[in-house]
Formats: sequence, structure tokens, C-alpha cells
Amino acid sequence: MRVVTFGELLLRLNPPGYNRFLQTDTFFVAYTGAEANVAVALSLLGTGAEFVTRLPENDIGSSAVNSIRRFGVRTEHIARGGERMGIMFLEKGASQRGGNVIYDRKHTAIAEASQSDFDWEEIFKGADWFHFTGITPALSEGLAEICLTACQKAKAAGVKISCDLNYRAKLWSKEEAGRTLEKMMPYIDVCISNVPQLFDVFGIVGANEKEVAEKTLERFPMELLALTTRKSLSASDNVISGALYTRETAAFSREYAVRIVDRVGGGDAFAGGLIHSLLKGAGLQKAVDFAVATSALKHSIEGDFCLVSEAEVEGLVQGDGSGRVRR
Amino acid sequence: MRVVTFGELLLRLNPPGYNRFLQTDTFFVAYTGAEANVAVALSLLGTGAEFVTRLPENDIGSSAVNSIRRFGVRTEHIARGGERMGIMFLEKGASQRGGNVIYDRKHTAIAEASQSDFDWEEIFKGADWFHFTGITPALSEGLAEICLTACQKAKAAGVKISCDLNYRAKLWSKEEAGRTLEKMMPYIDVCISNVPQLFDVFGIVGANEKEVAEKTLERFPMELLALTTRKSLSASDNVISGALYTRETAAFSREYAVRIVDRVGGGDAFAGGLIHSLLKGAGLQKAVDFAVATSALKHSIEGDFCLVSEAEVEGLVQGDGSGRVRR
Amino acid sequence: MRVVTFGELLLRLNPPGYNRFLQTDTFFVAYTGAEANVAVALSLLGTGAEFVTRLPENDIGSSAVNSIRRFGVRTEHIARGGERMGIMFLEKGASQRGGNVIYDRKHTAIAEASQSDFDWEEIFKGADWFHFTGITPALSEGLAEICLTACQKAKAAGVKISCDLNYRAKLWSKEEAGRTLEKMMPYIDVCISNVPQLFDVFGIVGANEKEVAEKTLERFPMELLALTTRKSLSASDNVISGALYTRETAAFSREYAVRIVDRVGGGDAFAGGLIHSLLKGAGLQKAVDFAVATSALKHSIEGDFCLVSEAEVEGLVQGDGSGRVRR
Amino acid sequence: MRVVTFGELLLRLNPPGYNRFLQTDTFFVAYTGAEANVAVALSLLGTGAEFVTRLPENDIGSSAVNSIRRFGVRTEHIARGGERMGIMFLEKGASQRGGNVIYDRKHTAIAEASQSDFDWEEIFKGADWFHFTGITPALSEGLAEICLTACQKAKAAGVKISCDLNYRAKLWSKEEAGRTLEKMMPYIDVCISNVPQLFDVFGIVGANEKEVAEKTLERFPMELLALTTRKSLSASDNVISGALYTRETAAFSREYAVRIVDRVGGGDAFAGGLIHSLLKGAGLQKAVDFAVATSALKHSIEGDFCLVSEAEVEGLVQGDGSGRVRR
Amino acid sequence: MRVVTFGELLLRLNPPGYNRFLQTDTFFVAYTGAEANVAVALSLLGTGAEFVTRLPENDIGSSAVNSIRRFGVRTEHIARGGERMGIMFLEKGASQRGGNVIYDRKHTAIAEASQSDFDWEEIFKGADWFHFTGITPALSEGLAEICLTACQKAKAAGVKISCDLNYRAKLWSKEEAGRTLEKMMPYIDVCISNVPQLFDVFGIVGANEKEVAEKTLERFPMELLALTTRKSLSASDNVISGALYTRETAAFSREYAVRIVDRVGGGDAFAGGLIHSLLKGAGLQKAVDFAVATSALKHSIEGDFCLVSEAEVEGLVQGDGSGRVRR
Amino acid sequence: MRVVTFGELLLRLNPPGYNRFLQTDTFFVAYTGAEANVAVALSLLGTGAEFVTRLPENDIGSSAVNSIRRFGVRTEHIARGGERMGIMFLEKGASQRGGNVIYDRKHTAIAEASQSDFDWEEIFKGADWFHFTGITPALSEGLAEICLTACQKAKAAGVKISCDLNYRAKLWSKEEAGRTLEKMMPYIDVCISNVPQLFDVFGIVGANEKEVAEKTLERFPMELLALTTRKSLSASDNVISGALYTRETAAFSREYAVRIVDRVGGGDAFAGGLIHSLLKGAGLQKAVDFAVATSALKHSIEGDFCLVSEAEVEGLVQGDGSGRVRR
Repeated sequence: MRVVTFGELLLRLNPPGYNRFLQTDTFFVAYTGAEANVAVALSLLGTGAEFVTRLPENDIGSSAVNSIRRFGVRTEHIARGGERMGIMFLEKGASQRGGNVIYDRKHTAIAEASQSDFDWEEIFKGADWFHFTGITPALSEGLAEICLTACQKAKAAGVKISCDLNYRAKLWSKEEAGRTLEKMMPYIDVCISNVPQLFDVFGIVGANEKEVAEKTLERFPMELLALTTRKSLSASDNVISGALYTRETAAFSREYAVRIVDRVGGGDAFAGGLIHSLLKGAGLQKAVDFAVATSALKHSIEGDFCLVSEAEVEGLVQGDGSGRVRR
Repeated sequence: MRVVTFGELLLRLNPPGYNRFLQTDTFFVAYTGAEANVAVALSLLGTGAEFVTRLPENDIGSSAVNSIRRFGVRTEHIARGGERMGIMFLEKGASQRGGNVIYDRKHTAIAEASQSDFDWEEIFKGADWFHFTGITPALSEGLAEICLTACQKAKAAGVKISCDLNYRAKLWSKEEAGRTLEKMMPYIDVCISNVPQLFDVFGIVGANEKEVAEKTLERFPMELLALTTRKSLSASDNVISGALYTRETAAFSREYAVRIVDRVGGGDAFAGGLIHSLLKGAGLQKAVDFAVATSALKHSIEGDFCLVSEAEVEGLVQGDGSGRVRR
Repeated sequence: MRVVTFGELLLRLNPPGYNRFLQTDTFFVAYTGAEANVAVALSLLGTGAEFVTRLPENDIGSSAVNSIRRFGVRTEHIARGGERMGIMFLEKGASQRGGNVIYDRKHTAIAEASQSDFDWEEIFKGADWFHFTGITPALSEGLAEICLTACQKAKAAGVKISCDLNYRAKLWSKEEAGRTLEKMMPYIDVCISNVPQLFDVFGIVGANEKEVAEKTLERFPMELLALTTRKSLSASDNVISGALYTRETAAFSREYAVRIVDRVGGGDAFAGGLIHSLLKGAGLQKAVDFAVATSALKHSIEGDFCLVSEAEVEGLVQGDGSGRVRR
Repeated sequence: MRVVTFGELLLRLNPPGYNRFLQTDTFFVAYTGAEANVAVALSLLGTGAEFVTRLPENDIGSSAVNSIRRFGVRTEHIARGGERMGIMFLEKGASQRGGNVIYDRKHTAIAEASQSDFDWEEIFKGADWFHFTGITPALSEGLAEICLTACQKAKAAGVKISCDLNYRAKLWSKEEAGRTLEKMMPYIDVCISNVPQLFDVFGIVGANEKEVAEKTLERFPMELLALTTRKSLSASDNVISGALYTRETAAFSREYAVRIVDRVGGGDAFAGGLIHSLLKGAGLQKAVDFAVATSALKHSIEGDFCLVSEAEVEGLVQGDGSGRVRR
Repeated sequence: MRVVTFGELLLRLNPPGYNRFLQTDTFFVAYTGAEANVAVALSLLGTGAEFVTRLPENDIGSSAVNSIRRFGVRTEHIARGGERMGIMFLEKGASQRGGNVIYDRKHTAIAEASQSDFDWEEIFKGADWFHFTGITPALSEGLAEICLTACQKAKAAGVKISCDLNYRAKLWSKEEAGRTLEKMMPYIDVCISNVPQLFDVFGIVGANEKEVAEKTLERFPMELLALTTRKSLSASDNVISGALYTRETAAFSREYAVRIVDRVGGGDAFAGGLIHSLLKGAGLQKAVDFAVATSALKHSIEGDFCLVSEAEVEGLVQGDGSGRVRR
Repeated sequence: MRVVTFGELLLRLNPPGYNRFLQTDTFFVAYTGAEANVAVALSLLGTGAEFVTRLPENDIGSSAVNSIRRFGVRTEHIARGGERMGIMFLEKGASQRGGNVIYDRKHTAIAEASQSDFDWEEIFKGADWFHFTGITPALSEGLAEICLTACQKAKAAGVKISCDLNYRAKLWSKEEAGRTLEKMMPYIDVCISNVPQLFDVFGIVGANEKEVAEKTLERFPMELLALTTRKSLSASDNVISGALYTRETAAFSREYAVRIVDRVGGGDAFAGGLIHSLLKGAGLQKAVDFAVATSALKHSIEGDFCLVSEAEVEGLVQGDGSGRVRR
């Protein structure tokens, strides 16, 4: 099985521990991006993954490639060129103080990519699944075009398509997001989102999650809608859960109260767990359980990558959340 | 607006994370002091601040000056001289284990300062507020004299005066504290304290906080009495709140359950938030809300300095304590 | 008073903070071992302690010796020889993700020790207590023999003997453990265990802890049985307590909800606290209170060593678990 | 005395020690820029300094301001706005391997500054000296215009002007550099450069340094020409010296063989030492000795800032390069 | 082009900087092994490389795989199994103090590998070159057998074979080494060694290097003999050079005086540079120049991996060893 | 064999690498003191050592005790009491920039010790040698008295006495030093010093080292005079050597050009090497060779402790200063 994901890979710079930007004289160096995170999660869970992007031809760009190649993600179709890569400065939150992100992601190699950078027919040879998120088309109009092309080529190649809407207010307006994503929805088989986002992007409202899900499934031709829920008690404690909806039925996960080590990438872990589980033929209940457990475990891991094995996720799904030392 | 604060600036040495003195081979280097912390808090909130102290003429002393100058605090009236600066060795607590402080603050430049080191008339030119805490007069008899002089000069210059009683059992006895602070109380417009401290220092008792506040306001001519409350569930979790009392009325903040990153400096953040808010003309309710929210946020920040902006405090006052990542 | 403990001293390598093996490029270096941990705990509480083991003749082996000598543990009977020392790779858990241990402890100096490495008559001269755990005989058949010899020599020298059963599934099967420990039980005066372990190792079952304790005290000639209880809410939060049983009576500690800094070594701290307290002549209630409070404090300390003083434990026993900063 | 410098302040990210970009997972965070470095050097030597630039309104931008304010540099005329600040990724060289710089300094707040961001008449009030380098006009055409305006305003205000040509091949072509700097040369009183650069930028050739200096002094109306020489034996060992030329006379420093800790900023330290010395009224010989000694000491200091005191430079000028510990 | 290398991959643990084992409480974590180092060097120079070994099925083993996969080395034929991987504790030397290595490499997954772990016919499909060193057969008799099989299969597949004799006194005696390697020499096309080693292993003596080379080329059927020379002035300064001998001719490199950052892996870098250069069709002179320059650059890089690009090596071959910053 | 040394044990705080005080936010924590350094050196070389001092009763004081106990130095006669321990802030020099020391060593536990803190008769039971340096009597008049008492008691107990004059201008004047040490000289058997120091302290002058040695041996009744020589080329490179003089003969070591990792403690290593060698019965030539080689190796080690084994020193004495990796 092989999943292709497409998007931006950013340099992630964060102060150690709970230090603020104003006081740090060190940054931990990592690389991140919603779609790259999904590829890494898949690779560690045991599903073959390839990540496609465009990165500058320098040692920072090469380090970005290495950061995912290290975990077994295939990188041979990453285009190299452009002048800079995006940077995400990230300050961890704690207690009442929220995390803080400063984006420096304009004029990047990926935002300035052109159609000729990616040979989708070649890329989708032997692929089973294509995943991207709403962040990719948000980065530039050109990239939105490329994204649409990728969807069309994936569909033509018989590759399943999933999209995590991932609306980011710092990147584009709700109107832009709605208008652009609307064009892609016809190609999407599995859509990942949440209730507030479906309202923001598509104006879908409902009395409860179920109604929102029904309306979404009415409006778009997707097979499966995945909705996640996050109760943010503080920057240190969240409660997360998820649900899967088809036109016929639905399945709901248990709730996990997570004590947060690093919150970023929790949604991407959900997507990775979901795709992995579906590709292994899981039913709705199994898939949502697996996806939410993957996401819960991600919150206990530093950095954006979901470094957990299938066995660890299965253990949590089976009910062992005691965190005991295995020895 | 410009606030002058006066006190000791110590070298703060703490092992990384939760390491104990007995096991560390690294110290993080920071600088602290109740009054310097208030100055830094004010500067970051947007109120001009100047800190006055005495520090030795060497590179450790200069680093201390730089540590607050960095955050915009004015330092031009800091006297240089003497042989050493105070040191606070600090070990962070966790769970049932309390934090531990080893003071090495005798024979310091500030404790051995003389009246001629500070030209208060010059210092208070253009100043709006003078703040000190009970720690300053506790450091030496000479410093208590200088403190009294500062109060008199501030009053003469029409500068408002606030004092956080800040009783420290390791520095002086309750009797000494009471006798010395008694002399300064007539000059103080805004007094910050808490119920047990008012008993320790001035022997004031009451059936409840309200009664203690009333008695305090009867006994001393202050305009405003601020009382803070801290429930220490463990070294990791505290619940904090505050109240402001005048002879006519009172205002009470909400309670914040804080998951602690670094507990030291929480009271100084309260003082900084309070002075900032009062100088901006806030009423009692707004001022106490702002002061307690500032203090709550401080608990999520490493080091003694309250590195939060007015916008962050306002956000929390408005009710967003969810700690969500802003992106 | 002098307590001799005997077992393995391992090199402990753990990534900083909550980093996983897969992402770290640094290991913190420490040394650990159930019996060495007890010796360090005792030395810091004020009871003389000596640790006996076998370590290779190189600078890693010498660093292991130094790691406990540093805290006052006597090391003059540590045999030097063999090719390697055991290694414990340790990954800290958090929230739903459990801690992970990778053992590399075969072919070690201690597992390959011979009877002639230890002159027990010399070692027990002036000793008051001998402590080991079920891990030591699990390491090799030869070591089990040596352990038995040590018990016999200790008994002959009038030295009291305690054993923490400490069953480790990664080291031996339940049957091997039962068969081997059975031979040692006649020598043991104080046995430390818990309900599931007594079932695993000796097949003892009961309707409740009390019944299990009674059956254990019937079957073996020990004076005192100590049972600990740990409720693992998550890798971040545990609730711990303990009980002491004799044939006549029993004593129970309060429960401590611990926010975990480092969970490993919690049981060894209990043993250290218990032995220290019993050697000081404490009654059952005092001893169990002291032992559990020692264990609770250990959870707040990085590394496996229980770096707490008698005064700190006493403070917690007296009820101060507020974690306030002492200043 | 007050010196104003104007240019870019970049975020400097470098791996610890001699690690390469390809292997690091940490960056040390510092801030740098030729003109900011000169301002910091001056402030530490005891000459008042102010730095002018434009930085984005976020916490990374504020940290940049703090990084120089910390050392006493005045920052009140720094304009805030724009989207990003420049970044310099820096990899230290060693032995035969040269240092490596990756610039990410396009689309920056300073490159996109406009004339109205800087009120030069206000800025030059009370100033004695204005310093910039060839890097500033290289950043954008708009900035070259602003630079020219600054020169004109400085001249009008009777402020002395120095420029370090600082040609950077990664920023502009030799032709662009020559054309642009040509326009500024009439305003410049003190020019800092070296023989290859004078050829690159202005096409000046000569049989030896003296002839190049004479031709430069013929062509431009400057008072003083400072030329530095660097023999790069390897990334670890350089030999540096300098010379000052007027139309009448010249002065030459001794050579320093420097064992390099951090080579970047060595030229800026020369400029800082030179301006400081000239402002104190030094003659040519004293000034060149002081400037080169300042530069030599800089090579022993991590980061781009020249953190040396006047006394330290004087000590080296007087001949103590033994590096003995003072105790 | 694809080069297969075969050998051990060890966990390398070294204290930061010049710290000794006796004082460190941190280890930097890296992975190393003569043949893996060659594979990484090749991959970074631009030649496809695959590394074959056997590693345990745990996260330390996986981290070892990731450490080379990160740099593009193919790892799909690495066998997983066994109980432990080898460890190299490494202490850096400085000045008169030599570096120190403690090996813990017995009972490892690779030493206990069996013939069936490696399907050489599969592995050599499409391969152009096979490289191993004398360390691999030294690890166990079984591994020596496997090594011989690999040579035979490589020869059968028309794959060129190189071997770096790499005699290690801590692993086997000279006699064992000679006896074992003797059997492999008939298969070897390119042999890398040095004068003292050829005497130790094969008893070859000569009046000078030339004579030793002639005798070696007489005795064994190799095409090419590469000899390296290292003058160790101190742990901080070495002078290195190399020579290539065929039966007809010879070529000699220049000498490089290297200031050492990390000396380990210098020989592997030579091998990597040599194979890369030969595979690109270089003549003897070009090949030896390239190989020695690669080795020189390696000495400036932390860790055992030779993280240099072809362009960097070419730059040094062309004569730029000035170590200037490129900016 | 057992050597007793007596003096101050200071907390040593130094920034990492070559960072200056002005830029660091971390201190490495170590403990140092001329006499403690000698004790550690002896213990590692294999001679039993005990260190006597006075330290405050807190965890910083206990960490100081642990720092030497760790290396096998006996600590049972260390008096505990007083308020603070001395601190040495240390900034490493490099190239032309000298190291910098800021002492904060007044009002310390040891300076304020009283005669009753040390029971010399008890301490010298079974001792063979007593060593102190001129720093100890420099710390206070009371300590000079105690030092004299120790000398008298050592003499009475038949214990040999050595003293390293160790004149420190920051601690006392030449006159004070001369007057005080004069009283102790009659007790000293082995005196360690250098030519400039003998002039500073005792006003001894001579045409060359030999003459100075002769005059010193005339004036004082010592058996052996050891003189060290240090040529400080820069903070990075020194050349060291030594000589031993008796009334009959003399012996001279070779010179070592040392590339410096950490220069502090080089003299103490000489003393440790000398005492160890003399106690093992070495002749003059062997002793001076051993002492200087010990000192040379110390320069390659971080921190003040001389962590080298007898075998390493012997290796260097035998001529292996090549710094090769042993593997």
C-alpha cells in the first residue's frame, strides 16, 4: 500500500520547554507540515508513504527532505528549486497561556511552484491513496491550481482521495477558502473536518453534529466524513474524540483526556491513523477508534511527527491508557 | 507614565527542569528581585519603568543590568559599587515536593548601599509612581533608612507609592518587619499583602478577609489595599485569586486554577498588573481582574520575569483561558 | 547503622524530556539498579549504606561506582571484572503513552560473577541489614546461587534480611521466579511485594489484600510483609499507597496522588524509606507512613535515585504536601 | 558622544559548535547585522550608540530589538512594520572547511521600508557620527534611496559619516554596487575597505596597497581611508592587520595571528574600534592599533557581537596577548 | 551507480566536547561503523549506496537504520533480529591526551548473524561495487564466513570489490586477521591499507612505502592498492596524505595539516572519496586527490559521518583550503 | 598511603565553551580549590586522599562534598557550618583574550572557621603527607592561624608537608603573603613555586632559575624545591615544564606544547603528580617527569579536576603524546 501526500514542509523553530520567544537563545529545529506529518505517521504505522513538495536547493532544504526520509517516507518526487522554505516559529502554551505561532511562509519554493514541477502521472503510479489538506491550496493561487490538477490526476489513476479541510485564518479568508475548496470537493472521497470549520468554510449549520454531517454528505459526493472534537480546558489539558459519518451510518470514538506534551500535529495524527486503518480494511468503528487513539498518543510526543507504532495504538484502543512502564 | 521601583537584583541560579541541587551540573542563569520583576512586567505591559538598585562593578553586575535593560526597563540610576551581588539558588518543586530556595544575599552591594548612592530628587523627576516591597528594608538597617528616605522624597514629589509587604521569614523576624514597615506605612497609597502576612507583620486579625481588610484600612492611611489568595494544592497546581479594598467598597477577581511552569514571581506579576491597570485609569473591578490574570499567566512562564503583553492579559480577562494555539 | 544491598548497577540512558528513542540525539547518563537505588535512598536519609556488585574495569564501570559513592554509599566491596555492564534504555511516558524500557543486560559482569567475587563474611562485618530484590537472582543461575549464599551468610551473621520481590517479566518466567525465590524465602525477615506479584510468583490468591497478606504470612516465616498499591491513571498521574502486615496486626498509609516527574525508582524509594524507618525503631504506622511518603517524593525527582532528606519526608508525613516554596 | 548606525538586523541561526546544517537539531539564536554589530561594539567600548532599522511587529522582531538594547544601544527610532525579518543561517567552518552562510533576507521589513519610516532630522539631533555599510543599499533600491537621504541629512546636520564598503556577492553585482555606492561617496568622511574590494566595486587597481589607497583618496573626497588585511590560513587560523591612510600620511598596525572562535563580525569590530578611537581624539597610529586589536579580540568571542571593553582592547594594544587568566 | 557496503552499525555514545567518561552526564547519540560511514559518504557525494547489516528489532535498532536512511542510504536488505547492537563509547582526545574507545560489541545481532539473513544474489542485483573492511570478519567466525560468501557472490555477479584492511587490535590478533583476510584477498580488486598494517596483518616489509606496495601487489591479485599516511602530532593536529599504486604506476596526494574537530571516520571518508571518484572514471591522480581531500574535510566534522558534498571536495582539491566564509 | 589536603572548596560557575559572562544564560556547575584539586588528582592516580575544609550546611555545600567524594576522596573531617561558600565565576579565554575570574569568596564558611572545627590529631592519624597552598592562609587571618596549627600538628605526627606558594594578587598583598608564609616555611618539606612568585613573596632574586633555587634552599630548611615554568603564547597555547632542586642536585622535565582545553588546575595537577610520584619512591628525574606530564594532560580536560590515571601519565612520560585513538 502506498499513500501520496502533497503540501508544504516547513522549518519549525521552537524554544526549549515553555520558554517564550522573548527569552530564548536556542531553537529546537524540526520540520513540519500537515501533509508531511500524515506521511510520517503512516510510515511509522506501517503503511508506505510518499511526500511531494518543492524545496530550495540548499542544506536547509536537504535537511527537510532528510527529516522525513529518516522515517521511511519516500521523497523522490520532491522538486528542488525556489529561494526559501516556509518557517513556523512555535511557542508552546501552558495552563491559561495559549501556544503562539509566527508564520514566515510567503515567497516560498512551494508557494511559487509551477505545474511542471510535478509529474502526477508518474507520481501516482502504484499509489493507493492521495491526501492533502486545505492548507496547500491556501498557500497561493498557483498551488490551488496544482492541487486541483493533482486531484484530477489521482481520480484518473483510480487513487482514493482524502482531504483535511484544515482552515487557517492566518492564511486566507473564509470566502477564499470556501470558493477554492468547493472546486475540489467533487474529487474527495474522505473528508476530515469539524463542525465549526464546516460552517466557516462552507456555511453549513445544524442543530448538532449529526445534522451538520448529514448536510455535508448531502452537499458533496464524498463517501466518508470524519469529524473531530477538541475541548480545550487549557493549553495543558484537552479532551479529544472523533466520529465517522457515511450516508447510512456513523461511529463514535471514546473521549481521551490528554495531558499535553506537544499539541501541534494532533489532527494530522488523526488523519494518518484513519487512512492507515481504512487501507487495512477496518470498519467504521475500528477506524475511528484507531484514528482517535493515534491522535491521543501524538499529544504525548515532542514535535509534530506522530512517532507511534501500530502496536502502541492498538494497545490504547484495547484500553491500556495507564501509561505503565513496560519492563 | 513612568514607574520607579527600588530593591535588590539577584543572580538567580536554577537547575534545569525538576533537577535538584544535589544532581545538577548546570544552572540556568537569570536575574530576579521582587521590584525588578515588577519593573519588567510593567515595561512589557506598556508602562514605562525604571529600576534603581546598587550592583558591583563587574561583568556579573553588568549582566544583571542588561537582563532588565533588554526588556526596556530604564537603568540609568543604578549605582555601581560594592563587592558582590545577592544570589538566589532555586530548585523547582513538583507534586508534593516544594520548591527550595537557598539565599546567599548578605554583604551585597545593595545591602551596603549608602544614602549618597541615590539622588531621589533626580530619580523622581517625571515619575508617576514609586514601588518597593518589604524585602528591600529587610536587607539591612541602612537600606531601611534609604527606603524611608525614598518614600519621603516620592511623597514630596507628588509620586504615588505602593508597597507589597512581601514578608520573608528567612530575612528578618516578624517583630523587625513590623517595627520597620510601620514607619513606612504613612507614606503608602497602595498596599499589597495577604491575610496571613498582615497578621505576621502587623498582628492584624479578623474573622474573615473582609474584616482584616477593614482593620488594615482603619489603622493605616492607605487608599487601596490589595489582598491575594493562593491555594497550594501541590507544587504543580495552585488556585489563585485577588481582591481590592477601599474604605468604601471592594472588588473580587475570579479564581484561576494554574498548572505551574514556574511559580516564582507570581506575586510580582500581580503588582505589575495592578499598577499598570490603575495608571491606565481602571476601576477597582477591572484592576483586580487585570492584576490576577497577569499573575495567572506568569505561572506559565519560565523565570521570574512576567513576559506577557497587555493583549494577552486582556484576552484572559475576556475569558479565553483555553490555551489554544493561535494560528 | 549499616545496610548492605546487593544487585546490578546499570547504565541508564534516557532521552531528554519526553523525547522518544526514535527522535533523540542525546541521552542523559545515569546509573540505576533496584538495590543501588535503595542504598542511595538510605544514605541520603541518614542510614549508612553499602552496595555490592560486580562491574567491568573500565571508565564506564568506574563512573557507575562514582555515581553512588558521590552520595555517600560505600563501595569498597564492589568486584571489578567482566566485559560489560548492563544498560537500560529508558523512554519516559506521558499521558496515555507508557514509558518504555529496552534492556541490554545479558553477558554482564554481574550476571557472570562467581562466588569468589564476594567475601560475605567480610562484607557483613558490622552490618545490620541486608537487602536485595528478585531482580538479582533473575539475572543468571549463578547469581541466584550467590544470592542464596549471601542470605545464608547474612543470617549466620545475625543480619536482618529484606527482599523486594520485584518480578520482571522481561527477565524470567513466573515459574522460574517462583522456584528460585521459594528457596530464599526462609531467610527473609521483611518481604516487600504487591498483590498481583504474589499471585504471579507464588500463586497466592485471596478475596482482598488482607487475605493475600494472611496467606503469605502463613506460607513463609517472614516477620513483616509490606504491600504497595499503585493506581496508574496515566503515565502522568498515579495514586500510591502502602500497607504493612504482621501476623498480629497491620497498618495502612494515606494515598498520595502524584504528578509524575520520573516514575522509575518509586518502589525502591519505598523500600529505602521502610528500612530506614524500621532501623530507627519506628512502629508499623510510622514506618508505612514514612515509606510511602518517601516513595511519593521520589516521583517528583529526575533519575532513579531518591534524593530526599529525612526532614523532607517527615514534612510530608506531617501533612505538608502543598509544595510551597520555602523562602 | 553618540553614533547612529543604520542597516538590517537579521536573525542569526547557527548549529552548536562545528555541527553542519545537515546534522543539527538545534540552532543558537542570535541577532546580527554589520551596522548593529558596530553599534554594540561602540556601546561596550563606552561610546553611546543608536541603531536604526525596520523590524516586523512580532515577538521575533521584538527579540531583535532586545538583543541590542540589552547592551545599551538605543533603539527608539527603530520602525516597526512589514512581514518578516532577514535570516542568516550560519555554519561555522573549521580547518580546511569554510564557514557557510545561507541568506534568507528577501522581502524583509527593512528591504521594503519607505522614506517615511525614518525621520532623519529627529534621529540626528545630538548625534556625532553616522555609520552604515555597503550592505544596506544592497538590500533594495528603495533602501539605497533611503541611505542616500540619510547621508544628505547627516551632512546637513554636521554629523560625520563613515561607510564600510562591505561588498557581498550574494546580494548584488559589482556593477550595481559601484553605481550605487558612487553616489554616496561624496558624503563619506571615513571609508573602510580592503584592496580586492576597491577593485571589485570601483575598479581601482594599484601595484600595492599604498597605490590603491592613493588612487582612492584622489578619486573620492574622504578624509580617511581604512584598509584591512586578512590572511586566511584555514577556517581556524587567520592573520589580520590594518592600515589608515590620509592624503598626507599613513599608519599601520601590527599583525595578529588569531585562533578563531567565531570569525563573523571581525570587520564590524574593526569599524567599532576605529570610530570609538577617532571620537576619543586618537591619532592615526593609536586609532589603527585600537581598531585592529578590537577586531582580534572579536575573533575569540562566540556570536557576531564584539563584547569587549575598552580596557581589554587597551591591554592588547599595550602588548598583553598572552591570554593569561586574571586572578 | 550503486555501491553495497556490509558490516556493523554501532551505537556511538560520546560525551559533549572534550569531557571524559568520568565526568559526563550526557552522551551524544550517533551511529557508526566503518562500512556504514562509507555508504553515507558515498550518498552525500552523489553515488547511490546501500548498507547491509543485522540489527535488533527494537527502537534503538530502528534509530540506527534511520540514521543512515536519513542521508539517502538504502536500507531495505538490513536483517532485523538478535538481541543487541554493538556500542562504541568514545571519548575525544585533545593535545597530548589520546581519544579513548570502549567497545561493547560482543553478542551482537551482526556477530550472531547467519548466512540465511542475507540473500546476496538479490542484494547485488544492479550493484556496481561491494565494499567491506577487515572489521566485519573480525567480529565473529560466522561473520567471516558470511563475508567470504558475499565476496564470492559479488565476484559472480560481476561486482567490483574493495576492502579496507582496518586492523583493530582490540578485536582479534594479527594471526587471526592474517589467516582470515588471506582467504578474501583473491576476490579483492581495490585494497585500502597502510604500511604498518600490511606488516601486522600479512607480514609484508619493505625499505619504504613503494617497496611495501610492490610486494603487496605481487602477493595478491588486486588491481589497485591505496595507502594512507597519518602523522599524529597530537590529538588536535594531524598531517594526512595518500597514495595509489598499481603494478604499473603510482600517484601521490598533497599533504593536509588538519586541525581536528572529530578524528574518527577519517579513513572511511578516504574510502568513500576513492570509490566515488573511481566510479566516476577518475584517473589515479584525480582519485587520490579526491580521496585525501574528502578525508581532510571529514576531520572538521562532528560525528563519524562524512557530511560533505562533491562540490566541497572539489573546491579543496582545486586548492581552496582557506576556510573563508562563503557569503 | 594517605595524603591530607586542606583549603577552600569553591563553587565554580563557567559559561559553556568560549561564551563570555555578558552573553551566557547557562553556567556549568563544578567545584574547585587548589587543595581539593590535588586531592582528586591523587585519588585518581591511585594514592589515597582526604580533603579537609568547612562548608555550609545546605545542598550546595553537600554538592561540593559529593563532587570530590565521587572520585574517592575521603571527606569525613569536613566541618559543616557557616553561611556561604566561596564562588569562582570563570570565563575561559581564547587566542589573545585572557581568561577572566570573578571571585566572590569573602565571608565564607572556611574563612570564618575556628580552630575547634578541625581535630588535627585525629585527622593526621595514619596520614603520610599534608599538603596546602598559599591560598588557604590568604583567606583570613584566622585561617592562617589554623594553617600554622595544622603544620605543627602534622610535623608532630611525623607527616611530611608540602606547600604550593600559589600567590594570588586578588587575595592579599605581597607583604602580607611574605609575612604569613615566612612563619610556615620552617615546617615545609617540599615547596612548589616559580621564579616570579619567589620574588613577589620572599623577594628572592637570582640571575637565573638555578640561582633563585639555591637562594631559596639556603634560606628555608625544605628538602625539595619544585619550580614550574609556563610560557603563555596565547590563551589557546602554552608551553610548560618543571624542575626539582635539592641542595645537592636538580632534575629537569621536557617541555610540553599544550593546546588548551581548560587551563585552570594545571598547577594543582603538577602538585598531585609530584606527591604521588614521590610517595611511590620515585627519584628526582622520574618525579619531575611524572609531575609535568600530569600537568600537561590536565590542560586537555574540562574543569579543574585532573581526571587522569597513572597509566595515562606513564604513557605520556614514555613518550606517546601523539594523541592517537586507542581502539
